[in-house]
Amino acid sequence: MKDVIAKAEILLEALPYLRRFFGKTIVIKYGGHAMANDELKESFAQDVVLLKYVGMNPVIVHGGGPQINSMLETMGVESKFVRGMRVTDERTMKVVEMVLVGSTNKEIVGLMNRHGGRAVGLSGKDGELIVARKMLVENQDIGLVGEVIGVNPRVIQSLDAADFIPVIAPVGVGLDGATYNINADLVAGKIAAALHAEKLILLTDVAGIRDEDGNLISTMASEEATQLIAGGVISAGMIPKVECCIDALAGGVAKTHIVDGRVKHAVLLEIFTTEGVGTEVVRSTAAKRRAVRRIRKA
Amino acid sequence: MKDVIAKAEILLEALPYLRRFFGKTIVIKYGGHAMANDELKESFAQDVVLLKYVGMNPVIVHGGGPQINSMLETMGVESKFVRGMRVTDERTMKVVEMVLVGSTNKEIVGLMNRHGGRAVGLSGKDGELIVARKMLVENQDIGLVGEVIGVNPRVIQSLDAADFIPVIAPVGVGLDGATYNINADLVAGKIAAALHAEKLILLTDVAGIRDEDGNLISTMASEEATQLIAGGVISAGMIPKVECCIDALAGGVAKTHIVDGRVKHAVLLEIFTTEGVGTEVVRSTAAKRRAVRRIRKA
Amino acid sequence: MKDVIAKAEILLEALPYLRRFFGKTIVIKYGGHAMANDELKESFAQDVVLLKYVGMNPVIVHGGGPQINSMLETMGVESKFVRGMRVTDERTMKVVEMVLVGSTNKEIVGLMNRHGGRAVGLSGKDGELIVARKMLVENQDIGLVGEVIGVNPRVIQSLDAADFIPVIAPVGVGLDGATYNINADLVAGKIAAALHAEKLILLTDVAGIRDEDGNLISTMASEEATQLIAGGVISAGMIPKVECCIDALAGGVAKTHIVDGRVKHAVLLEIFTTEGVGTEVVRSTAAKRRAVRRIRKA
Amino acid sequence: MKDVIAKAEILLEALPYLRRFFGKTIVIKYGGHAMANDELKESFAQDVVLLKYVGMNPVIVHGGGPQINSMLETMGVESKFVRGMRVTDERTMKVVEMVLVGSTNKEIVGLMNRHGGRAVGLSGKDGELIVARKMLVENQDIGLVGEVIGVNPRVIQSLDAADFIPVIAPVGVGLDGATYNINADLVAGKIAAALHAEKLILLTDVAGIRDEDGNLISTMASEEATQLIAGGVISAGMIPKVECCIDALAGGVAKTHIVDGRVKHAVLLEIFTTEGVGTEVVRSTAAKRRAVRRIRKA
Amino acid sequence: MKDVIAKAEILLEALPYLRRFFGKTIVIKYGGHAMANDELKESFAQDVVLLKYVGMNPVIVHGGGPQINSMLETMGVESKFVRGMRVTDERTMKVVEMVLVGSTNKEIVGLMNRHGGRAVGLSGKDGELIVARKMLVENQDIGLVGEVIGVNPRVIQSLDAADFIPVIAPVGVGLDGATYNINADLVAGKIAAALHAEKLILLTDVAGIRDEDGNLISTMASEEATQLIAGGVISAGMIPKVECCIDALAGGVAKTHIVDGRVKHAVLLEIFTTEGVGTEVVRSTAAKRRAVRRIRKA
Amino acid sequence: MKDVIAKAEILLEALPYLRRFFGKTIVIKYGGHAMANDELKESFAQDVVLLKYVGMNPVIVHGGGPQINSMLETMGVESKFVRGMRVTDERTMKVVEMVLVGSTNKEIVGLMNRHGGRAVGLSGKDGELIVARKMLVENQDIGLVGEVIGVNPRVIQSLDAADFIPVIAPVGVGLDGATYNINADLVAGKIAAALHAEKLILLTDVAGIRDEDGNLISTMASEEATQLIAGGVISAGMIPKVECCIDALAGGVAKTHIVDGRVKHAVLLEIFTTEGVGTEVVRSTAAKRRAVRRIRKA
Repeated sequence: MKDVIAKAEILLEALPYLRRFFGKTIVIKYGGHAMANDELKESFAQDVVLLKYVGMNPVIVHGGGPQINSMLETMGVESKFVRGMRVTDERTMKVVEMVLVGSTNKEIVGLMNRHGGRAVGLSGKDGELIVARKMLVENQDIGLVGEVIGVNPRVIQSLDAADFIPVIAPVGVGLDGATYNINADLVAGKIAAALHAEKLILLTDVAGIRDEDGNLISTMASEEATQLIAGGVISAGMIPKVECCIDALAGGVAKTHIVDGRVKHAVLLEIFTTEGVGTEVVRSTAAKRRAVRRIRKA
Repeated sequence: MKDVIAKAEILLEALPYLRRFFGKTIVIKYGGHAMANDELKESFAQDVVLLKYVGMNPVIVHGGGPQINSMLETMGVESKFVRGMRVTDERTMKVVEMVLVGSTNKEIVGLMNRHGGRAVGLSGKDGELIVARKMLVENQDIGLVGEVIGVNPRVIQSLDAADFIPVIAPVGVGLDGATYNINADLVAGKIAAALHAEKLILLTDVAGIRDEDGNLISTMASEEATQLIAGGVISAGMIPKVECCIDALAGGVAKTHIVDGRVKHAVLLEIFTTEGVGTEVVRSTAAKRRAVRRIRKA
Repeated sequence: MKDVIAKAEILLEALPYLRRFFGKTIVIKYGGHAMANDELKESFAQDVVLLKYVGMNPVIVHGGGPQINSMLETMGVESKFVRGMRVTDERTMKVVEMVLVGSTNKEIVGLMNRHGGRAVGLSGKDGELIVARKMLVENQDIGLVGEVIGVNPRVIQSLDAADFIPVIAPVGVGLDGATYNINADLVAGKIAAALHAEKLILLTDVAGIRDEDGNLISTMASEEATQLIAGGVISAGMIPKVECCIDALAGGVAKTHIVDGRVKHAVLLEIFTTEGVGTEVVRSTAAKRRAVRRIRKA
Repeated sequence: MKDVIAKAEILLEALPYLRRFFGKTIVIKYGGHAMANDELKESFAQDVVLLKYVGMNPVIVHGGGPQINSMLETMGVESKFVRGMRVTDERTMKVVEMVLVGSTNKEIVGLMNRHGGRAVGLSGKDGELIVARKMLVENQDIGLVGEVIGVNPRVIQSLDAADFIPVIAPVGVGLDGATYNINADLVAGKIAAALHAEKLILLTDVAGIRDEDGNLISTMASEEATQLIAGGVISAGMIPKVECCIDALAGGVAKTHIVDGRVKHAVLLEIFTTEGVGTEVVRSTAAKRRAVRRIRKA
Repeated sequence: MKDVIAKAEILLEALPYLRRFFGKTIVIKYGGHAMANDELKESFAQDVVLLKYVGMNPVIVHGGGPQINSMLETMGVESKFVRGMRVTDERTMKVVEMVLVGSTNKEIVGLMNRHGGRAVGLSGKDGELIVARKMLVENQDIGLVGEVIGVNPRVIQSLDAADFIPVIAPVGVGLDGATYNINADLVAGKIAAALHAEKLILLTDVAGIRDEDGNLISTMASEEATQLIAGGVISAGMIPKVECCIDALAGGVAKTHIVDGRVKHAVLLEIFTTEGVGTEVVRSTAAKRRAVRRIRKA
Repeated sequence: MKDVIAKAEILLEALPYLRRFFGKTIVIKYGGHAMANDELKESFAQDVVLLKYVGMNPVIVHGGGPQINSMLETMGVESKFVRGMRVTDERTMKVVEMVLVGSTNKEIVGLMNRHGGRAVGLSGKDGELIVARKMLVENQDIGLVGEVIGVNPRVIQSLDAADFIPVIAPVGVGLDGATYNINADLVAGKIAAALHAEKLILLTDVAGIRDEDGNLISTMASEEATQLIAGGVISAGMIPKVECCIDALAGGVAKTHIVDGRVKHAVLLEIFTTEGVGTEVVRSTAAKRRAVRRIRKA
């Protein structure tokens, strides 16, 4: 009996978080290891369904990754890269869209539904959700790689209102109807801003951001993040993610989190525990101070 | 880190119950030890607030008990009893109402609000929630002891819709305006029926119902309960509670539970675990079979 | 037949007032003689129920008075006073709350329901309606006597929307959960401001405010009231009531009235006749001029 | 002061009627003397506006009368009659419609608005409110005199919902678009049935229905009315009105009243007093018995 | 088959206009030849019903004209004129109202209903839609000729919301209840402004506005129109119409059109083709440039 | 000018159809030639967007076809067939889903959006729209070929309510989460029944159904269709389509149409002309008679 009571007490620890985030929108970028490992896939789907059932509005943006490469290979499409970004011609784009929207997205939707959620997949073309244009990389045209120029959130809002969980593939549509492949972190940031989300959570494959001495940073203000980037402390791979947080905060998102997606239930832990599992980027130094105080008290 | 992940997994165990009871009404009779012990009082308030936050509609009916006796004593009002029921003259009734509505009820409301709930206290007079008439005990008039003849649930529904938790004192009003003291179990049963509640939970000070051999019964059908009463197996003190369950089931409540209120978090455990903590009385033998199967599977 | 036609014409005299106050909120402080005399109690209940039926939203705040004293006496609790205010220790507070919420409030609710209204009683703890803190009197701590620091009107609004009449006992709750006894006039004023009420009516046991020559003042502006207080013209007992009117006007209430509660149907007369029965305190000299003109015209 | 209190008491006498008729639809056929005399016109407009303000839904159907005759005369249109009904050719119909819809209706609307109502005039053509066909009189074609074959009440319901008072001219439209002049009593009865009205009130120029001995009948059941007609007791002029009541009762109207429109405030008196001013025709003998009992008790 | 496909393609040409005007309010002044010729009457009714069915909100204001004169003549009422405006005494006004509201309006309503619309006629008295005062012409009192001083659009909005088509006779009501005859163009302009209409369309009996050289002007800015009036280029008869457009634009209407009502389906052509059939007056020179560009592109 | 007027008249011919189908749901199976030819693709997208703008609710179910074959080939997946149906192993199913959901569906969505619609693509997994199970063909397991066992239409209804056009790929999800390829005609029929659609339109590559003499049948009743199938008159390829119509009619769809998708604007012609372009299958012989009469009259 003691065991069961202990369980009840753990449920009750969730109460302050339930109160704080009730009815709030949480945008989660889902990718990396968490999307590749079967156990983590299950745990992620469960986490999201739970959030929905306790009254929050999770919105998922997923990446693509290994599946795309293997499909391109199977089909004998060769890939060139410019500064680590794939040059995306029309044929490649067709494969990317097909895999992201027709395979990856559907797998995630199916998994959530199997855990009792009611997920609905969307591409950026649906309801013209993500309007994009060609992104130049160092003034070079690398094909159909896009950046977001507008978000029409109404389709998300309709689905939210009917208690569905929107799951979004990072494909955008140009004003001329062209299809663009867009970095999923960027899409998540823009959608979080358009929805005035309470939280943006980016799942990554690292433990968080580290300072000059290699120590994990638990909370940092937007301006510190900018300095760390300028000072070369943040690794190249993390820079886009951190910038995405900075932008989302500027666009009205209340808090952003870079979270270790390799940890089981990383999303639940981020939302329902004081410490979280990664680095939190907040709007201002004052907000950071409040966050730190909360951790100490707990 | 393992510890936190274990916690997340406990949260997730709640998921099937969250799904099953989302938006459902749970009427809880609160009384006995659970209302006398400070730790249990806190744990009960937390349990109820949690239910509200995860989307259920808890409705509380509380008893009175020791406070009434001590107040009658302080005021020098003597009590006579007929078959264990207090003969309630007008003066006694005034004290009973004052204590139940003005003291006990307010303490419960205050406690829930301190845990972040938004509770509102009601007496059966408010919105003529509980309409009553005099109850004769063996054809004897024992004064203002009443039985429920009607429930006007609209005030509860308005408060529910605005996300308040209704907390009800078991005082009824006669068609002539008289005030009646009513057994709280009976009130809870009638209100559960009027609200077509999903569950009626009666907190008691025993572990549950026992069979002829003294073994705890985990689940029994309405007809078995009737037989056990007829057979003299169920103790005199439990008979009214069991009858109240039988009536509520007949009135449309989906399930009823006689639960050990001396156990911390008894309400949460009842709702979020397979075994529960007491005896479940269900409508039919078929329903019992389903319940038993669920327990075995878990 | 002439008699009946005359009656119809009296009904029709109400038409302009029905039009003016349709859908408006009228906060009424109920106390003094009107709460002690049986005939006046009936007439008050009828008045309020009528207001509700013709489309206004009456909100009642009641005082306590003699009942509290007699209960304290019965229970052998002695009372000390500082500048006419009772020093309220915890034990006294418990009795005050019990009487106000569990007895006085319920009697008023019951009476209104008997006249066909649908009243619901509230204490300041319900839905944390009245948040309070300790009030020092001349820097002296006189115990649990409070002043209002916040009003959460949502529970009133939910009940209004469902056509209930809220009846409020002047008990507040501290941020720490403590219970406070608060002057009912003050509570009525704060609630009127929080609801942006059209009218605040304070029932008293005098004919109204008198000027230096002892003549009844029918209408006065807020600034005149301030001067009369400064000039020592207004009696000590009336000062808190007049200040409460001044505050309510500053807080957005359209008009305030100090009305002679000893007159039968004082509330109806105040609302449905030009002269009213007492003294009206209005926001500005211009508003006063308009009011005076209306009386002359009638 | 006594006078004013007496007035308040008269207001309160209205309370039971306010409760009984709140939100109910009252269809009133307006015609005869009440539409010709200036004082009665004012009193009728006031009565209707009051009903609206206290929460009922009055719907007015008006007749035409003397104005039509004088206009036909002015224009030199001669009239033939068959069994007291005007033979209505197209030219006559045009004048009838013009006077009813463009003059009489507008005067009533204007008068109500001047008393603070918000009236909107309708002809049976508006929203195809009244669909009609030619009525033969003893197998004779007397032109564009119609009978109602359908009512589309939606335009009335939209106006009601927006708090307007609908005022209806008894002009119908044929399936072929032809315009028909229809008896206003008949129109009122059909509209009352289509709206499931609580009451149908027909204003007339007599004191009510009399029995064989010439005594006024206060209440009679539908079947008695049928017998009185069969027995030749009811005068020829009253027969259509009584039949209209019988039909309306059969069509679902709760009560019907033939009221003396020459009495000032006849409508208010009918609704707000026990005796009323005329003859009430109710559905059954049982309903009659209840009505009679109510009168005796008052 | 080719023919039918060609028809489908014409339907599809309407698509961009359907998109642009979906849910928008279009106020149309109906008068002149279009109201006198049977074929044009039919075509106008069809046009309006179609607009309603494809999701726009047409609101019709009609004039009077020849019918009034013939009725005055029949009745032997003589007319005097001041600067072309009829001196309107009370007797004349009564005839004007009767004809406009009781005859012309009803004919239009009937015609639309026959084409499957659901039209409801309104006079400015209904719901006090058009509040007016006496208009002096060169400081001369010419009787009950009015100008609009207020519009209460709620009755129109209620009807719109219930999918009725409002058809308005240009009769206004004074603050004292007097009836005023008002120029229908002026009424249409004021109603368009009160409804924030997308378009005001004035049907006339000319091809449009011509410039100094007699060429039809297709589009002109508000300021140009002012200059053309000042320069004496616009004919006396057209000046009030053009001024009405200028006022409506200033009052918030998006676009105004002076259209040749002698052309069959003039309303449809104006809305569903690029060129339109008359002269468009737009708010600014920039708006004009955009309009011209659109025509060239088409 | 005559030309433009002729155009307006063609617009007006649509009026009776607009009235009949306003707010109605039209399910369209899109496939075959209409999905392969660029001109037909454009014309189909325009047709659907027009339907939406004039107030109908089109719901599209599309097929797959040649794209799937070419992708399987590119990827080197070989296909076996049983009675003309592809044996679908897991690897094949993955390709089918990817192409249908990630490519074909997205192309249709994009095309509609480019024509001003707001389309949203759905797979049967989204919101568990299409629940399926394995379909045996002559008792043979041919892999993941499914039949519909349930439709959850809520996601369609949410999108409809927010004015989106749902575009559905015929992929179903098993109770165990498996993915099934389902015949698009069958899906369209089941969805039409679940939505109580007004019409089900199946686009094909033939002119319609022919009788024994090879003459096109314009309208036939459900029972005739059954006889023609039994009699071997309907070709093997058409049998499933006709059966799908029969089922949909039995399931509550008002009318079904087998339409020649090779004709430009086939959808518009079917809805907006009397003859339509193919064969109509109606519920009963009586319905057929009404339809034939309508054609003759036109």
